[in-house]
Amino acid sequence: MNNVPFKGIIAYPITPFDKNEQVDIPLFKTLVERLVSTGSHGIAPLGSTGVLPYLTDTEKEAITEATIQQVGGRVPTLVGVSNLTTERTVYHAQFAEKAGATAVMIIPMSYWKLTDDEIVAHYDKVAAKINIPIMAYNNPATGGVDMSTTLLKRLLEIPNVTMIKESTGDVQRMHTLKKELGDDVAFYNGSNPLALAAFAAGATGWCTAAPNLIPELNLSLYEMIKINDLNAAQKVFLDQLDLLKFIVAKGLPRAIKTGLEILGTAGGELRSPLQPLSTADQQQLTKILEDVAALQA
Amino acid sequence: MNNVPFKGIIAYPITPFDKNEQVDIPLFKTLVERLVSTGSHGIAPLGSTGVLPYLTDTEKEAITEATIQQVGGRVPTLVGVSNLTTERTVYHAQFAEKAGATAVMIIPMSYWKLTDDEIVAHYDKVAAKINIPIMAYNNPATGGVDMSTTLLKRLLEIPNVTMIKESTGDVQRMHTLKKELGDDVAFYNGSNPLALAAFAAGATGWCTAAPNLIPELNLSLYEMIKINDLNAAQKVFLDQLDLLKFIVAKGLPRAIKTGLEILGTAGGELRSPLQPLSTADQQQLTKILEDVAALQA
Amino acid sequence: MNNVPFKGIIAYPITPFDKNEQVDIPLFKTLVERLVSTGSHGIAPLGSTGVLPYLTDTEKEAITEATIQQVGGRVPTLVGVSNLTTERTVYHAQFAEKAGATAVMIIPMSYWKLTDDEIVAHYDKVAAKINIPIMAYNNPATGGVDMSTTLLKRLLEIPNVTMIKESTGDVQRMHTLKKELGDDVAFYNGSNPLALAAFAAGATGWCTAAPNLIPELNLSLYEMIKINDLNAAQKVFLDQLDLLKFIVAKGLPRAIKTGLEILGTAGGELRSPLQPLSTADQQQLTKILEDVAALQA
Amino acid sequence: MNNVPFKGIIAYPITPFDKNEQVDIPLFKTLVERLVSTGSHGIAPLGSTGVLPYLTDTEKEAITEATIQQVGGRVPTLVGVSNLTTERTVYHAQFAEKAGATAVMIIPMSYWKLTDDEIVAHYDKVAAKINIPIMAYNNPATGGVDMSTTLLKRLLEIPNVTMIKESTGDVQRMHTLKKELGDDVAFYNGSNPLALAAFAAGATGWCTAAPNLIPELNLSLYEMIKINDLNAAQKVFLDQLDLLKFIVAKGLPRAIKTGLEILGTAGGELRSPLQPLSTADQQQLTKILEDVAALQA
Repeated sequence: MNNVPFKGIIAYPITPFDKNEQVDIPLFKTLVERLVSTGSHGIAPLGSTGVLPYLTDTEKEAITEATIQQVGGRVPTLVGVSNLTTERTVYHAQFAEKAGATAVMIIPMSYWKLTDDEIVAHYDKVAAKINIPIMAYNNPATGGVDMSTTLLKRLLEIPNVTMIKESTGDVQRMHTLKKELGDDVAFYNGSNPLALAAFAAGATGWCTAAPNLIPELNLSLYEMIKINDLNAAQKVFLDQLDLLKFIVAKGLPRAIKTGLEILGTAGGELRSPLQPLSTADQQQLTKILEDVAALQA
Repeated sequence: MNNVPFKGIIAYPITPFDKNEQVDIPLFKTLVERLVSTGSHGIAPLGSTGVLPYLTDTEKEAITEATIQQVGGRVPTLVGVSNLTTERTVYHAQFAEKAGATAVMIIPMSYWKLTDDEIVAHYDKVAAKINIPIMAYNNPATGGVDMSTTLLKRLLEIPNVTMIKESTGDVQRMHTLKKELGDDVAFYNGSNPLALAAFAAGATGWCTAAPNLIPELNLSLYEMIKINDLNAAQKVFLDQLDLLKFIVAKGLPRAIKTGLEILGTAGGELRSPLQPLSTADQQQLTKILEDVAALQA
Repeated sequence: MNNVPFKGIIAYPITPFDKNEQVDIPLFKTLVERLVSTGSHGIAPLGSTGVLPYLTDTEKEAITEATIQQVGGRVPTLVGVSNLTTERTVYHAQFAEKAGATAVMIIPMSYWKLTDDEIVAHYDKVAAKINIPIMAYNNPATGGVDMSTTLLKRLLEIPNVTMIKESTGDVQRMHTLKKELGDDVAFYNGSNPLALAAFAAGATGWCTAAPNLIPELNLSLYEMIKINDLNAAQKVFLDQLDLLKFIVAKGLPRAIKTGLEILGTAGGELRSPLQPLSTADQQQLTKILEDVAALQA
Repeated sequence: MNNVPFKGIIAYPITPFDKNEQVDIPLFKTLVERLVSTGSHGIAPLGSTGVLPYLTDTEKEAITEATIQQVGGRVPTLVGVSNLTTERTVYHAQFAEKAGATAVMIIPMSYWKLTDDEIVAHYDKVAAKINIPIMAYNNPATGGVDMSTTLLKRLLEIPNVTMIKESTGDVQRMHTLKKELGDDVAFYNGSNPLALAAFAAGATGWCTAAPNLIPELNLSLYEMIKINDLNAAQKVFLDQLDLLKFIVAKGLPRAIKTGLEILGTAGGELRSPLQPLSTADQQQLTKILEDVAALQA
């Protein structure tokens, strides 16, 4: 596998807003710094966690530049550049490359369900315009398209499409990728509650917002997998499962923002129509974080 | 029911593009004129058919103005102003009102699944800023949220939310709306193959792109329902069912553009990543349109 | 359409049990008599409502004979003879024919999902051994198989398979049947809350347990359809919709038994593991039946 | 965990029939012997693989006795006694106990979807009449009911319900069982393609028909898990994945019977409506078994 700059825990920062619902770049940099300094192996701004689709082009550019500046080459960066139109996807991919991103992540967003040929042409046009590697992202729940293994194989024939992020939440898909694509591709898990099963299936990394709240547990799971200790991996995974399920169920931007505040760190505001967690949900999250802390004590 | 300006066949124009994938306003006006002159009871630009999410703010404004200018008050206009953020939804709703739209249509678009409270607040903020009526649009397939009858009742408490468009494709939902909301609300069907069942369930109107290709059949179905002739309505519905199923299955912008060309009218280009129908699909559509013409001869 | 002995309201009696959970034939006959005397156009014992799969062969035979004896030729009878094995299906179909049944109903029950060829062979073997017509029944929820239109066409090539009962709950399926099979087949609706939509789509009859509780409303819906009065049909359908949804949601044998008792008629006991409705459900059903009575007063 | 007699690979024999579709007990015994002598850790007759619902009471009793006689106490036996009615379930459970079964497996079969209370009462009545442990089996696809974790906890309060077999195919369910029930229960995986993920999640055993065809690979997976060697487990799992997916996709009785014949062992006939694999499917299975043999060579 060439041109595969990521492995382990790839952390997704949220995009924080100020009281006027404008992007708060200084706070964003602080949050990125936390992720790097606590040990994540890669930083991925402008994902679903970073509310990419809710941002203007200008805001996306500011986030891209702030990330690369703050990370300063300590770990690789994976910038989300997905867009409904091919033209805008090319634009943001080129911007990310110029700004110094290690790679870009692209999900074939679709309002109208895209055909396989449309998806291949979409990636092809973007890939032809940049020189950094592309992680193709499959997530039917947000992208509206479930890319088949056959389609993924076609995408991997494009030279700089070298990585696949899988978020169907179906471990069978990962077995199939591993079985059919073997060592020709690195695949990454994007479904938090599937973290253990995905690593057991051979995932190269885990794309997750959880390191904003519980970096030690996330990193520990990866370490146990690396040393082939399944029993220990299972234990540390069960220790973090409630938190993983909670942040997925409540929506990552809402849950991470609130979790940060519970942990004593500013999380900023959300952009409407997104609203903070209810009081009951906040209390549940506080309890989960206390339980996690007790386990690690 | 007050403040309900639509009934019958509400026609959705496509947004045509030129060779450089730029919006073609003159062609758009021609297409709107066809819809009005063939008898549609309302015109709804910037819907899914009009590839709303693929357009820039400037393009949306140009389409809005072109529609209202071309329609010239002959029939009411329903402008799509949905947006992921509340701020942009307010902006486009205000623009549409100022431009002279009869009403606006809003689907609670969601990348992150919205809570009921978030959806109510979203509509509430927009409704407070405009004086024209709002059609709330429920379409889980494109909006990512299935609004319950309970939620729809909450929305209808907002004074200028007076209409509901239902596109779940489940006729039971319409029975429930009719049963629970009775004469307090007008509901509209947005699922083409459900047109007969929806009218039988009491729908006030049918939101459809089909009048771009078969206006006589669409209007005839409504006429038969109006004179309470179910047998005739069933017959004219079966005559158009194959066309309705085809345009839904292949994607409305693709299918309508190609259908227009088969009928001898320019349909413009699509914006990437959307691509034209395959040759096989074009042949199938040609056959369906020929069959429809033969039935009407 | 030849060999199609049913139209209108085909009523399904429950199978009542005594205190020892043994079939109560005298009470069963009383319930059948109620259905005939209140005007149902056909009687269908040993359906899902009649808990066919919970009965022994001997019990099925007793129910078959009791039905035919009690009905006495006043209306046609449709006896359920479905079984997991082909051999037992043939056995019960032959028994029903000899006992005097007008027709038999067969769903391709499947523990292991059957292939199309297995289903065709199953019907073929049964059809070859009897001379009365067969109603093929499609209900994925209980049969585990969703028979495609293509498969149904193959079944209809068997001479005495002349009727189709559709219970997918999807009105599109009925439109497709009507469109593709046209006047070559009679189709019947088996989904209670779809009764209006199915008649609007051209269904020949409605297979339902509802006449045990509200025969006048069921018959009235059919009458309004027959005289092509959609507005009146819609009204009488909405009057019965709550009852139809309740009996489906709670399970027909439980709901009908309790409803009979609320109406002052013995409903017998259920066979374990089936248990009576909860007190809250009983109160809800009482309320629904009172509302229906008030509408008709 | 007390009263938990199973771990590792629990093998499911098919029920073979002769040319007249009668149960072939001598061949059945031969097939059971193969499973025991190749090392399976338990034998489970009268499962889905053994076409339990297609058999008469007498046939079930003959299979039960043949199994216990042939196994002769070398490994524990798990006899399927599920039935739609509580009365018949009690009957078969008592028969199995008297015949010498180690434990019984019970799925809450349901034609009518059972309530939680009905399911608890069902298990309760059976459990009260026998002294051997019960494995409660959750398989929505065949049983029609998906038992929640809450319901499973209620079942586990019944003293001799000590084991759970999970076949939803969702690894999250297993994480939840492990997390919430901890060491109070043994859970078993019944979904073949989930074998690796289930063991990684802490499953005590794997209920599978695969040892009829590839016992070494099945046993090897369990061995690698026991010695905590995830890398080796992943490799041996991928080696058998195609076979596991094939037998599930084509139906276990059909696929195992054909696979046995490909391997040179008699597999008997199927009972109608079940029919043998198509020629194309037989060729595919031959290829898969050759590939497996090559891997092990």
